[in-house]
Amino acid sequence: MQSYSKRVSMVVVKRLPRYYQQLIDLELNDVEKISSQDLAKMMGLTASQIRQDLNSFGAYGQQGYGYRVVDLKNAIKDILGLNVPYNCIIIGSGNLGHAIANYEGFKQKGIRIIGMFDNNANIVGEQVGDINVRHMDGLEPFCEKNHVDICVLAVPRDVGQKTAEDVINLGIKAFLNFVPLTLSVPEDVVVEDVNITDSLYTLTYLLNEARNV
Amino acid sequence: MQSYSKRVSMVVVKRLPRYYQQLIDLELNDVEKISSQDLAKMMGLTASQIRQDLNSFGAYGQQGYGYRVVDLKNAIKDILGLNVPYNCIIIGSGNLGHAIANYEGFKQKGIRIIGMFDNNANIVGEQVGDINVRHMDGLEPFCEKNHVDICVLAVPRDVGQKTAEDVINLGIKAFLNFVPLTLSVPEDVVVEDVNITDSLYTLTYLLNEARNV
Repeated sequence: MQSYSKRVSMVVVKRLPRYYQQLIDLELNDVEKISSQDLAKMMGLTASQIRQDLNSFGAYGQQGYGYRVVDLKNAIKDILGLNVPYNCIIIGSGNLGHAIANYEGFKQKGIRIIGMFDNNANIVGEQVGDINVRHMDGLEPFCEKNHVDICVLAVPRDVGQKTAEDVINLGIKAFLNFVPLTLSVPEDVVVEDVNITDSLYTLTYLLNEARNV
Repeated sequence: MQSYSKRVSMVVVKRLPRYYQQLIDLELNDVEKISSQDLAKMMGLTASQIRQDLNSFGAYGQQGYGYRVVDLKNAIKDILGLNVPYNCIIIGSGNLGHAIANYEGFKQKGIRIIGMFDNNANIVGEQVGDINVRHMDGLEPFCEKNHVDICVLAVPRDVGQKTAEDVINLGIKAFLNFVPLTLSVPEDVVVEDVNITDSLYTLTYLLNEARNV
């Protein structure tokens, strides 16, 4: 496999996790090589789309052979920035915070949840896996002692923006945002939204459209 | 406001929930009208993009007045299919299923969770709000007695496809899918994926790119 440019279009980047997961599954099943046709079938895409996506970062399959699974997986892992570990904290430790802390796959992919925080006295002190939920008052000293890469934000909507600003002031530059709110952040801060209500609305839109056909 | 075509592009549809939430907030704050400039500022978009989005379904602001908040909100609510209620079941009632059942905003937007199901004997029988978690064996008789519009799928990845097929065989046509898996479904079934790991990967990609600049 050739070296590839880091500049991959965001549309392709958004599809890479699916490739990555599929290649992990193939590797677990001891599959050594895969053709674009077979990969396409597994992923519900066309072979030509697959080739185009993978070409975009220099992963050219060999004619009559296809792709070496382990090489392709490692190239994608590298592009996704998964060769380095990330320290992550969860702010808002209600049901959603708990679900995220227990979400299968975070830890095995190099995402270490090193702290959970909440304002609710009923939740502070709870043990979630090997994490003890701390009060928000402890966030600043915690961030002074520990390097934090990512903040998972799972607080109520009305305190979302304020909480994000407090976190940014502590030097954290990346949010996985579960609050149904467009966070207003400085340019050097990255936010990835996981908006469950939005996904639900897309579904009701499609359902309603199908009803009206 | 003029009548509008139901055929709105998916790109705009994906932005509509943000407009909708913003307009709900404005209405709650007794704001009666809003200019595209002010709406743009609140949403981090340009006024021209806002006008183009809203024009696409026939919502033309009046020059020097802007948009009537309640009319615009209702038009978007209608497009999103939120004028009719939806019955929803959750399959997989672990932490994530619990979080979804308690997710703020579902009920108030016409999404009624009418059943929760799990295979785990430790979870079956648990009370979540006013819902009693049932064993999966009870899914078929439940679907015979109740009309179900949407299935929230929050089961482990290895049983995701099989569970989806069982649910489709019971006549359910829409999934909010939390399983990190591309479900293979018939053409008349709609799936909206909420993939937390994918969002995290996008974040690690952006973080890694920023590190390498």
